[in-house]
Amino acid sequence: MTTTAPSGYTYDDPALPPSPVSVEDLERLKASVLFTDDDAAALAMAGDVLADQITDVLDTWYGFVGAHPHLVAYFADPDGEPIKAYLDAVYQRFGLWILDTCRRPYDERWLAYQHEIAQRHTPDKKNRTDRVDSAPAVSLRYLIAFVYPITATMRPFLARKGHSEADVERMHQAWFKAVTLQVALWARPYAARDW
Amino acid sequence: MTTTAPSGYTYDDPALPPSPVSVEDLERLKASVLFTDDDAAALAMAGDVLADQITDVLDTWYGFVGAHPHLVAYFADPDGEPIKAYLDAVYQRFGLWILDTCRRPYDERWLAYQHEIAQRHTPDKKNRTDRVDSAPAVSLRYLIAFVYPITATMRPFLARKGHSEADVERMHQAWFKAVTLQVALWARPYAARDW
Repeated sequence: MTTTAPSGYTYDDPALPPSPVSVEDLERLKASVLFTDDDAAALAMAGDVLADQITDVLDTWYGFVGAHPHLVAYFADPDGEPIKAYLDAVYQRFGLWILDTCRRPYDERWLAYQHEIAQRHTPDKKNRTDRVDSAPAVSLRYLIAFVYPITATMRPFLARKGHSEADVERMHQAWFKAVTLQVALWARPYAARDW
Repeated sequence: MTTTAPSGYTYDDPALPPSPVSVEDLERLKASVLFTDDDAAALAMAGDVLADQITDVLDTWYGFVGAHPHLVAYFADPDGEPIKAYLDAVYQRFGLWILDTCRRPYDERWLAYQHEIAQRHTPDKKNRTDRVDSAPAVSLRYLIAFVYPITATMRPFLARKGHSEADVERMHQAWFKAVTLQVALWARPYAARDW
């Protein structure tokens, strides 16, 4: 991982447009995934557990994507060749996404960057950040499907630093809630209505 | 639970239109949630564990929905009053959905009924089956958010019949995959494109 902000990482950019999703909308969504202050505390603990394991987590996820041509396609050029510079740039931001999920307050700034991430999965902004010629959108079906692998593969990493089984479970449930919550937010640009 | 098919349950209706989603699409989605034959076997076991607990599971879920006005709204009339007959009809079908998730083969017939369920969350078919005047669609955000409560609340029920911790975990992971897979399928009618 780089220690400076990777290319295209605009979380702290003062010019980041606000999200169309309100803090009240977010509160209702949090209630729908049973997300509480205890989950925020568990995620803070998870951030400390994961901080020096980010590349291991990402390598697991990239290995999963790399093993499935229908997933690699979202990083491929029109000839079907994976674009290494694109994969690398997303890798850097994906690592910070893990830590942001654990450590950032879920406030208006967080919502604004969720909106940015959401748009980067769709024709609104995909490929633009990294100036690549790749698939125009990540299909919504796989965005949702990823809740499973992104949740399930995380548990061994959370268990690696000697925490009690109860704390590992607490961190893992909080992670599951946070991932589900974010996928719900990222689905917004796909829905013509009824989001 | 009724022993005859509840009103609006058309899984075995020969007139059920086929799904626009192909078996090949389904195979890719299954791979994306790591769903294997072992998960199908674990779900069959879960079906036996859950068969006499369906009302307990449904009461848990209805209790959760009932505690949140923004969720009850999807079952309410234009005055905001929950429609009891609608809640009851969905309850009956929801119970069969649990067993279908565990026991039915994930084949073309299953895909066809998933498509029917998907449409019943949106203006295409919501309210029509039960001839009610309620919210025109379940918001996509909550359809996705529900992956968490529908998964997490299931574990104690799976653990209630004396199975080993390993078997309970196997059933629970298979359930998590199956729920995620179905929500991915149900998202289809919401997406104008890029599903």
